[in-house]
Amino acid sequence: MFEFKIKHKQKGSLARTGSFKTPHGVIQTPVFMPVGTKATVKTLSQNDLKNLDSEIILANTYHLYLRPGEKLIKKMGGLHKWMNWDRPMLTDSGGFQVFSLGNENGYSKDSLPFKTTVKIDENGVEFKSHLDGSKHYFTPEKAMQIEHDLGADIIMAFDECAPADSTKKYFEEAMNRTHNWVIRCKKEHEKLSKKSRTKLPQALFPIVQGGLYKDLRVQSAKFMNDLALPGNAIGGLSVGEGKDKMLEMIETVIPHLSENKPRYLMGVGTPEDLLECVDRGVDMFDCVHPTRMARHGTFWNETGRFAIKKEQFKFDKSPLQKGCTCETCKNYNRSYLRHLIFENEILGLRLMSIHNLHFLLNLMQEIRKQISKGTFKKFKKDFFKKFATKK
Amino acid sequence: MFEFKIKHKQKGSLARTGSFKTPHGVIQTPVFMPVGTKATVKTLSQNDLKNLDSEIILANTYHLYLRPGEKLIKKMGGLHKWMNWDRPMLTDSGGFQVFSLGNENGYSKDSLPFKTTVKIDENGVEFKSHLDGSKHYFTPEKAMQIEHDLGADIIMAFDECAPADSTKKYFEEAMNRTHNWVIRCKKEHEKLSKKSRTKLPQALFPIVQGGLYKDLRVQSAKFMNDLALPGNAIGGLSVGEGKDKMLEMIETVIPHLSENKPRYLMGVGTPEDLLECVDRGVDMFDCVHPTRMARHGTFWNETGRFAIKKEQFKFDKSPLQKGCTCETCKNYNRSYLRHLIFENEILGLRLMSIHNLHFLLNLMQEIRKQISKGTFKKFKKDFFKKFATKK
Repeated sequence: MFEFKIKHKQKGSLARTGSFKTPHGVIQTPVFMPVGTKATVKTLSQNDLKNLDSEIILANTYHLYLRPGEKLIKKMGGLHKWMNWDRPMLTDSGGFQVFSLGNENGYSKDSLPFKTTVKIDENGVEFKSHLDGSKHYFTPEKAMQIEHDLGADIIMAFDECAPADSTKKYFEEAMNRTHNWVIRCKKEHEKLSKKSRTKLPQALFPIVQGGLYKDLRVQSAKFMNDLALPGNAIGGLSVGEGKDKMLEMIETVIPHLSENKPRYLMGVGTPEDLLECVDRGVDMFDCVHPTRMARHGTFWNETGRFAIKKEQFKFDKSPLQKGCTCETCKNYNRSYLRHLIFENEILGLRLMSIHNLHFLLNLMQEIRKQISKGTFKKFKKDFFKKFATKK
Repeated sequence: MFEFKIKHKQKGSLARTGSFKTPHGVIQTPVFMPVGTKATVKTLSQNDLKNLDSEIILANTYHLYLRPGEKLIKKMGGLHKWMNWDRPMLTDSGGFQVFSLGNENGYSKDSLPFKTTVKIDENGVEFKSHLDGSKHYFTPEKAMQIEHDLGADIIMAFDECAPADSTKKYFEEAMNRTHNWVIRCKKEHEKLSKKSRTKLPQALFPIVQGGLYKDLRVQSAKFMNDLALPGNAIGGLSVGEGKDKMLEMIETVIPHLSENKPRYLMGVGTPEDLLECVDRGVDMFDCVHPTRMARHGTFWNETGRFAIKKEQFKFDKSPLQKGCTCETCKNYNRSYLRHLIFENEILGLRLMSIHNLHFLLNLMQEIRKQISKGTFKKFKKDFFKKFATKK
């Protein structure tokens, strides 16, 4: 289980295709994972996701822990059975949400370490529920227990994701804590895995931190990669540091992460970022962006991103994207979709989500094809010629 | 076009099955029509409706007139083309909404005829948009023009629907106005129909009014039935008068409506009401109830209606209804649906809507089958034995 096989490597690039084996099936990489925060990818059914050829989806530990609680989900047979999703799944550890949502005073360096409702010590983190303000305490062990109860195929280690504007000193502290915590995660994960023989195996991925400092990032990448876990993740990026900085950090980290393990960049999901990061050796991505922007009436096509509410689409009989094979484009025109979004009709939210996910999943499929043919570099260049990147 | 053929009659009942021919296909009666107020049956796609075997849907003239405007829809090729629905459709005339939504001071006898922002005269009705308070004026001719621009297969005459607690004097006034208006509707409809030879034919249905007074209802039924239009509708019921009163009025009206025209009872849609009214000779129904109650987390099964939020469903692994073949019941358990509704997740709203519409459309199919076998009376009795009616 959890074998990662590299299939093709692109010359002149770190891009590669591969496959990652999990108890619920094999994932083809590079892969984009739609986010199902509360065990549902917003507006879509599990059948919709299958029709979109989504091979793996993500769910959020923080949200499911708070409601309905991981014990309910465990009692119902685990996430897969409860929500009727028989393909691979990944859960995060709650690490990021504990700091971003669990902090009443917002998420920046000014809220750390004093002016905050999140209390971090070496043992774990106390935070307030964003739902009702109730106090909760997460430790690496607790995160592992929850993720074992949820039962996803890939589970993430509990990390501290420091705000992008933290000082170097704070980034280093947070990184060291994350390193100590991942050791405890691994230990607890191994204990829990041995405990039940009927349970399906789960893969634990560590998360590289270190903020925006190259030396810290290298240190963290080496530390995590040495843990002999089946994959590696890069956290704490795409949190407001700017695109150049993000790419610089990825370029710093990648050489220190084994080639024969999948590399997962957390929270990234625009077409431009996917292309740039695949080129730099990333294999897995997740982001709420495609579905969130869909619910705000924004869609992608081969020429860029557009707001459907614009006057120009009022009488537009064409689909969101010419030649697109998604359910939305096969059946509905821009004029009708514009009306649905104006009226905040649920069908509009769903149809826009279907198209945006199709666009991204289709792009990933195309990326895999181009890498396998050795033409990824040209494909990327051609894509950016047509696609107007938002500044 | 617009032939109504009676297929089977139930002995000891006024129930019958039939078919009604329209330009977009034949409707099997008795039929329930899901309501797509703003050219979308809330939460569902047109494919969802086809999967539910919905033969006809309804859209609201008042809402579409205000936004996006009937001229836009006409320019886009009419409702069918714009929203990609190739089966029969019906539009109301805006009559009911003008009085209920167009009245800032609520909808009761106290708001009529003086304390109201709706101004009724013999020529038409001035009302305020519920969206922005802007003033609008509907006449019978205007309603016909809008409905012709929308292009549904069946269009409704413009009527005055007086509040259920009106005086007899006011009911009579409103009825007489409605009678004058239907003549004008018919004239305008004929004029508009002749104007364009390429347009598909539309069937105009008049609406019987008369409030809760038998003599008025008989007078109105005779008047409408004599108009030589292809169907008849009964309006102004199910607006708070109580079930016994509603059934009494239906029993009063039906004998005066030709057997060889379909009879449409407007705004009715609980399983109990459908059974009772089919038994009394009604052929067509519409109501927002199944989809609205779904969005509030309430569902039907063969034993009654239930709120999914109840504690008892927390760990319930069974579908909403045992043996149900809808997408919701085939794929999801009550525990997961309860979670989705608690979290106000859109998937939950859609899955509950699918089940409730399936329940009602399936009930109508079963009713048609039972009438064709001559066993409707027994079926109705058996249904009520199991089904706990809400008092």
